[in-house]
Amino acid sequence: MDTTERTVRKNYLYKGKIVNLRCDDAELPNGAPCKREIVEHPGGAAVLCVEDGKVVLVRQYRYAYGEELLEIPAGKLDPDEDPAVAARRELEEETGLVADLVPLTVLYPTPGYSNEKIYIYQAKNVRKGVRHPDQDEFLDVIPMPIEEAIARIKSGAIRDAKTIAALLLYEQN
Amino acid sequence: MDTTERTVRKNYLYKGKIVNLRCDDAELPNGAPCKREIVEHPGGAAVLCVEDGKVVLVRQYRYAYGEELLEIPAGKLDPDEDPAVAARRELEEETGLVADLVPLTVLYPTPGYSNEKIYIYQAKNVRKGVRHPDQDEFLDVIPMPIEEAIARIKSGAIRDAKTIAALLLYEQN
Repeated sequence: MDTTERTVRKNYLYKGKIVNLRCDDAELPNGAPCKREIVEHPGGAAVLCVEDGKVVLVRQYRYAYGEELLEIPAGKLDPDEDPAVAARRELEEETGLVADLVPLTVLYPTPGYSNEKIYIYQAKNVRKGVRHPDQDEFLDVIPMPIEEAIARIKSGAIRDAKTIAALLLYEQN
Repeated sequence: MDTTERTVRKNYLYKGKIVNLRCDDAELPNGAPCKREIVEHPGGAAVLCVEDGKVVLVRQYRYAYGEELLEIPAGKLDPDEDPAVAARRELEEETGLVADLVPLTVLYPTPGYSNEKIYIYQAKNVRKGVRHPDQDEFLDVIPMPIEEAIARIKSGAIRDAKTIAALLLYEQN
């Protein structure tokens, strides 16, 4: 069965700094017309960095939720940027660490309405670089024992999808 | 350190069927003004249903990615809907299964720009109900051996965040 939904027309409603918004005219596999609200996002890169049994997390206020979250270091790709380059940049900016990066997985966080992909890397051969967070980033670096991070995932205290996926994948290996 | 970003004014740019979009005037903890692009989403509910060593997945075309994805059954909450009610509805609509639902975790898929929360439940005492997918849903139900699903997560073939989080959490227990 062909399940492809065909784009009839892309209609941009907003072009912003982080996201664009479209409401496309599309066609279902049976030819019926439909609308598709799509959030365009350039994609993200994130790094799972484990050293001496501790995972490097950052604690950061997230305006969308009105909460501080614990997450692995991550950031948005620049247009057409190699995700590994973005991952390396975000790791050093946020934590002051430099590392070799090995692809861990690609995460699709919200398939219902966004095209964002999060490229997750695992840090190897970690060494000290220079921390220089963006001027509008207020974040704390928290090295947390892996067992504690896993316990916080199981208890629901760590809720960020990329952090959960990265840590539990790491635990599988 | 207080890291709270204060809302100065919520500015709605779009109110849609699936998402709303705002670009708020806000203030950083140091008082500096900033803009925050926020995708409002009512939240989602998803169900991890494992029976006889098989996890119930649905294969569905996702317009945002232009790909078919394998995911656990899930759907959007109606306004102010109890997530457990939505989870039960989506499970039966998409798979024809009825079950008792136990909360597994709450997932924050994209903290950078969306307020979506995905409430994930685990199905217990599973029995047959009546399958009735939405008219614009074309999906296949795929019962997949757990080991195969885990292998597909590790190989990167299963990429949906809620599905990865739910299955790997299940494996932890």
